[in-house]
Amino acid sequence: MKTEILYGIHPVSEALKAGRRKFFEVYLAQNKGSNRAEKTATIAESLNIPLKKLKAFELSSITGTDRHQGIGARVSPYPLAEPTDIYDNIKPDKNPFLLLLDSIVDPRNLGALIRSALCVGIDGILIPKDRSALPTPAVSSVSAGALEHIRLALVTNMVNAIKDLKKRGVWIAGMDKSAQKSIFSFDFSCPLAIVIGGEEKGIRSLVKKHCDFLISIPQKGEINSLNASAAGAVVMYEAFRQREFKKQVIVQPQRH
Amino acid sequence: MKTEILYGIHPVSEALKAGRRKFFEVYLAQNKGSNRAEKTATIAESLNIPLKKLKAFELSSITGTDRHQGIGARVSPYPLAEPTDIYDNIKPDKNPFLLLLDSIVDPRNLGALIRSALCVGIDGILIPKDRSALPTPAVSSVSAGALEHIRLALVTNMVNAIKDLKKRGVWIAGMDKSAQKSIFSFDFSCPLAIVIGGEEKGIRSLVKKHCDFLISIPQKGEINSLNASAAGAVVMYEAFRQREFKKQVIVQPQRH
Repeated sequence: MKTEILYGIHPVSEALKAGRRKFFEVYLAQNKGSNRAEKTATIAESLNIPLKKLKAFELSSITGTDRHQGIGARVSPYPLAEPTDIYDNIKPDKNPFLLLLDSIVDPRNLGALIRSALCVGIDGILIPKDRSALPTPAVSSVSAGALEHIRLALVTNMVNAIKDLKKRGVWIAGMDKSAQKSIFSFDFSCPLAIVIGGEEKGIRSLVKKHCDFLISIPQKGEINSLNASAAGAVVMYEAFRQREFKKQVIVQPQRH
Repeated sequence: MKTEILYGIHPVSEALKAGRRKFFEVYLAQNKGSNRAEKTATIAESLNIPLKKLKAFELSSITGTDRHQGIGARVSPYPLAEPTDIYDNIKPDKNPFLLLLDSIVDPRNLGALIRSALCVGIDGILIPKDRSALPTPAVSSVSAGALEHIRLALVTNMVNAIKDLKKRGVWIAGMDKSAQKSIFSFDFSCPLAIVIGGEEKGIRSLVKKHCDFLISIPQKGEINSLNASAAGAVVMYEAFRQREFKKQVIVQPQRH
């Protein structure tokens, strides 16, 4: 069976919590191991996962990075969802909230977007099979282990995926820097998929054509562009706010 | 005179636009230079800045990184503002909007926060002199050159800075994961400074004590934490929305 090497406290501990990967072996660096790394290793041992203690440099060699924080694990490959798993879960009364990442190439951005997506309760993420960063251990590390919990599927054709979602009553809102409509004047309370494009060129033009709406994030200043992961966090949180916090009473500040 | 080596297309071109640094020399990599690098070098030449063409590896050696995108420049040190420059600019009728970064240590997070701050029109950033990432060329690079435009000052004592701001009628809102009050139920429309703490431990306790309010970002899911730069983008954009977009009409989606 093909295996992967996870590294870092969050990826290993969240994968243990999530219970979606098979663990073959946990590696703990003897000297560099922090309390948190040791605690995670203890949990793994209590689940009868073989524990191997080794030197920090040996762990660096096994994981291929120095960013292992003293812990690693040999595990089964990333538990991808099937697109149909995500589609089948779409029930109008559940008000689905999906994320389509159209060709994010930087694993750091992919990891950060997945982390934010989990924080707002995204029901599923679709990414293209080709020309995209993939859910590797490096992405799990940047996502602080959020990758281990999120439902993520690869699609061969993003346009077909959008058509499938539309059939199920989901609205498709694409992020486009040059769109007139602002995220602050758009109603996110419907069954929704947000499409975020790649770092350089944004959403591919054929995918863009199939979006129901194109929306942009208002920006001031001389530079006029948020980075991909900040933009993703901002739009996902505006949607989250509208969908779940709109009736909150705003309290005027008073100095005591 | 002490000089710094800026690198990357955005840092060099934005520093040229901002006009706040003295340029001594611009470096262009002959082979690796992209069209955008060459265009930036042409602008520099038109401003009578000496241009030196060299090999990509020589530029890597001068800049100390491979992430130079074919261009670099020897410039005067970062044009820090004095805290008093920022305080003197606080006029109640201008409704000031400030950012206090209490010990962000990762230059990537500092750069990303500065980039988002420029996008929402932050009037000034205060960071502590010690125990913080500083406005280096690497931060300018991560900020996509936003650092070259933003007003940023170092303070020796963050608590004193907060006291000075309070005297000028500015409200201090500190980000705190365990705060009961949500950013979605807080009124950001007042003269405001948002305080964001370091990556691991958040705002230091003495600084926290001097905040008028502590607020948190609502989060779902198993992981329960945004990364520092995503959290910063989300709270700055919620404040920006409330301050400038609150009266926007929300349009209900209709499929055409």
